[in-house]
Amino acid sequence: MLGLMQDRPLTLPHVFHRAEQLFGRKRMVTARPDGTEDVVTVARWAERVRRLATVLDTLGVSADGRVGTFCWNTSRHLELYLAAPCTGRVLHTLNIRLHHDQLVYVAEHAGDEVVFVDRSLLPLFWPHVDRLPGVAHVVVLDDGADVAVPDDPRIRSYEELLAAAEPYAGRFVVDDENTAAAMCYTSGTTGNPKGVVYSHRSTMLHSLVTLIADGPALAERDVVMPVVPMFHANAWGLPYGCLLAGTDLVFPGPDLSPGAIVDLVERHRVTVTGGVPTIWMNVLPLLGGHDLSSLRTIFCGGSAVPKALCEEYRVRLGVPLLHIWGMTETSPIGTMGVLGSHLDGASDDELAAARVRQGRPMPLVEMRIVDPETGEEMPWDDHATGEVQASGPWIAKEYYRGEGGGAQFTDDGRLRTGDVATVDPYGSFRLVDRTKDLIKSGGEWIGTVELENEIMAHPKVAEAAVIGVAHPRWVERPLACVVVEDGESLTLDELREFLADRVAKWWLPDALELVDEVPKTSVGKFSKKTLRERFAGYALPNA
Amino acid sequence: MLGLMQDRPLTLPHVFHRAEQLFGRKRMVTARPDGTEDVVTVARWAERVRRLATVLDTLGVSADGRVGTFCWNTSRHLELYLAAPCTGRVLHTLNIRLHHDQLVYVAEHAGDEVVFVDRSLLPLFWPHVDRLPGVAHVVVLDDGADVAVPDDPRIRSYEELLAAAEPYAGRFVVDDENTAAAMCYTSGTTGNPKGVVYSHRSTMLHSLVTLIADGPALAERDVVMPVVPMFHANAWGLPYGCLLAGTDLVFPGPDLSPGAIVDLVERHRVTVTGGVPTIWMNVLPLLGGHDLSSLRTIFCGGSAVPKALCEEYRVRLGVPLLHIWGMTETSPIGTMGVLGSHLDGASDDELAAARVRQGRPMPLVEMRIVDPETGEEMPWDDHATGEVQASGPWIAKEYYRGEGGGAQFTDDGRLRTGDVATVDPYGSFRLVDRTKDLIKSGGEWIGTVELENEIMAHPKVAEAAVIGVAHPRWVERPLACVVVEDGESLTLDELREFLADRVAKWWLPDALELVDEVPKTSVGKFSKKTLRERFAGYALPNA
Repeated sequence: MLGLMQDRPLTLPHVFHRAEQLFGRKRMVTARPDGTEDVVTVARWAERVRRLATVLDTLGVSADGRVGTFCWNTSRHLELYLAAPCTGRVLHTLNIRLHHDQLVYVAEHAGDEVVFVDRSLLPLFWPHVDRLPGVAHVVVLDDGADVAVPDDPRIRSYEELLAAAEPYAGRFVVDDENTAAAMCYTSGTTGNPKGVVYSHRSTMLHSLVTLIADGPALAERDVVMPVVPMFHANAWGLPYGCLLAGTDLVFPGPDLSPGAIVDLVERHRVTVTGGVPTIWMNVLPLLGGHDLSSLRTIFCGGSAVPKALCEEYRVRLGVPLLHIWGMTETSPIGTMGVLGSHLDGASDDELAAARVRQGRPMPLVEMRIVDPETGEEMPWDDHATGEVQASGPWIAKEYYRGEGGGAQFTDDGRLRTGDVATVDPYGSFRLVDRTKDLIKSGGEWIGTVELENEIMAHPKVAEAAVIGVAHPRWVERPLACVVVEDGESLTLDELREFLADRVAKWWLPDALELVDEVPKTSVGKFSKKTLRERFAGYALPNA
Repeated sequence: MLGLMQDRPLTLPHVFHRAEQLFGRKRMVTARPDGTEDVVTVARWAERVRRLATVLDTLGVSADGRVGTFCWNTSRHLELYLAAPCTGRVLHTLNIRLHHDQLVYVAEHAGDEVVFVDRSLLPLFWPHVDRLPGVAHVVVLDDGADVAVPDDPRIRSYEELLAAAEPYAGRFVVDDENTAAAMCYTSGTTGNPKGVVYSHRSTMLHSLVTLIADGPALAERDVVMPVVPMFHANAWGLPYGCLLAGTDLVFPGPDLSPGAIVDLVERHRVTVTGGVPTIWMNVLPLLGGHDLSSLRTIFCGGSAVPKALCEEYRVRLGVPLLHIWGMTETSPIGTMGVLGSHLDGASDDELAAARVRQGRPMPLVEMRIVDPETGEEMPWDDHATGEVQASGPWIAKEYYRGEGGGAQFTDDGRLRTGDVATVDPYGSFRLVDRTKDLIKSGGEWIGTVELENEIMAHPKVAEAAVIGVAHPRWVERPLACVVVEDGESLTLDELREFLADRVAKWWLPDALELVDEVPKTSVGKFSKKTLRERFAGYALPNA
């Protein structure tokens, strides 16, 4: 027996028309490279989306063609976020930090027919355009940057196209909610990037979840500033969620310096922002001099949040960094570190430890931990570790064009996340490592992320990454690569003494290397692959 | 091009398994008729649901058979809420307040194969069982009521069946999200009740929306007490939402007296509750003597909330009554009266008026107002009125077995709600009447709900209903049927004077009748049909 409910597909035109109809007076602010701000109401923005829809037709983009973007976080980028999927096309956000060979690979693999490029980013894109014969047009979004625009028939002006276009009239219609809406390539540290293809359905469901109280809780009264780039997994779903909720939006544009971020929060009374831990680490020294009292939440994701950083924000700002865990393949929100009521009455130490957990799965997401060697499902006792495997309607089932051959998916269709975690009896996940970064010492696992967190709690340590190096007896032993605070130094003995009552004895690093910085991937995560290459054949002092 | 996301259906087994896995330690309290309380953890409750699933097989209920319930709000009722749909059956909540002819009609029309009846309700159900040959079993949920249980082979004991059953092992699976999950009959004031059939998909999406910040915002820390009966449109979706969010739950059982409600709130530190305005009107005199500081929200729905009542709660409790608008056909949440940020800086009067609006449509719900005569869509200027038409994935597209012949649905598949409203430019709806209750006077509409709200603002008035009576010149004119506060009286002149600067002059009632009570329908709404019958042929004083 079937239900007798209306057959309304979960498609992005609903988000567009809802914002246009209910939230027309709300504002979107974009910081421009020249220090000025571009301000549009949602009503005006919506009218521009309607023009852009016509422009895509004018440019001859196929009915389901890929629309590449090579842009900062701006309200114009959000125009593309809607106009492409609402007209049946597929938004493809290109990561501006990719190596140019990867950029060319990705744009070609996706089949981008047109690429929209911020003028300030043209020097990163244009030199490679001849390697992309499928790209018929490069549409330049003039952000006022002092960058020459080549005289080439492929180059078009975004604003000129919009000015000349008729706004699309009537309602956008996408009938099948399983239609592709957007795609984003993973920045895997091995092999070529792999394409994740979001559907309208997955994006709508994920957007709904950005509104829930025990989640991002986006609400009409919020002023949201996504610092996380819009080319990273839809900026964690914030932009679509904001349109659905009717928030004001602040886009930081190209200047992601700590000063610029803090200024925007203060000036526009931002209530919600989000970005990788490095951003908030850099902002830390500026906390004192600004009125940031408008903030109710700072989302943090992309890598584990150091406990000391989280506590520093909590004590000085009254707002801890709230963990979002996920990855490109999970749209990205899988879990959030909202504290459960079972922690009522917990000690300060317990609370601090709880705040840096990755937290509970979102509604509709189901997760388990599995022993990476035996495939056995592990218990939720906060002790046993296993690889996190995830399922849910906004989690990938395969990569575009079958790349990777399904190795990252289980026989029952779950995503192997490559993260290793424990789970407590309340369903809160705590990441201890990546499967490929785990150190196997004397038959036991050492979780490097967990060990790094403890090292970063040392007052002299700014950043730390731990890698395994070969050991004749124990197979592998940990090497700590540490960035010390300005003017400080640190010895292995000091570090081991500090860690002595914080980790198991056999977790204590066998060696310490002071480094200028921890190398990062294009999305800002620690690149342990680079470290392992750098310290290949490392001679441990006691080996 | 299709998205490459996992094909995970939106089905209720997710709600069950999420609650079982993440929230096992949370509590469900049920008040019993004898004054004691039944307390179960979610873990224990989930184990009972697994047993109940087996019981449904044992009883021989068909694979998609209708499972009737005739129950108060209890944790056992919630066992049925999950066990029926998670095993592919269809939960059918019978309204215990239906006239017995309607009850028999509804149970037979739905095809109930078994009916689960609270022992305290057996006297209302059992006398009619012989008229229901399709009902093979009547399973009695012994709530300790002092009521004889007939010696009849059809009678089974809920607890004995559960004790004897093996818990269902493994995961529940419902593959097709469009499968029927539950059904509920409307209590229309004309004609036979009509069946609304909820699907798993509609119920899941609706449940998600009960979690959103600008909605019910159910969260793990909440203690939720649904006073709204579980036989009214799934108790507004609260029970499923609570399981998804992981709240504690308090079920009031049969005693819905003001004293019992207030005691439960105080004793269990209830944070969220919801029910029709009459409930909160009756609770009002008890507000002073109890510590109700745990409440963060009181949802109110089913009929318009009088402004005076809303303000009384806000001033005395710090929590206004928050409007939920909807109907059985809308699952039921269509809009909620959350205040928009455009009201920042509004006057007290403006805010009070805003608080009793029905509010903005929920995400995924799309609404319009349409002139009931011309079919023309009306503007959102808060002045023009029209019939509310709604669409969305949890809104009915037809009635069970095609009853009503589609008259309540538009050609483009929207639900005609029968409510008449204005909409302000911010998308907030304000109900002024039911289409069938509108009074047409001299070619202009008079909104009776709006007029009643103003009458109920009079300090001597407890309740008021307005109906149209025939007038030789104006076609119809308003008659106010008023219940005065104890010991008070009221004249037509007094009333007209009070209303003079509150409504248009031609809205002033032509007549006043003092009545002992406003007749109510089985779901607690004003029954104007009964009033119109009572005052048929009424002679207006000035006609």
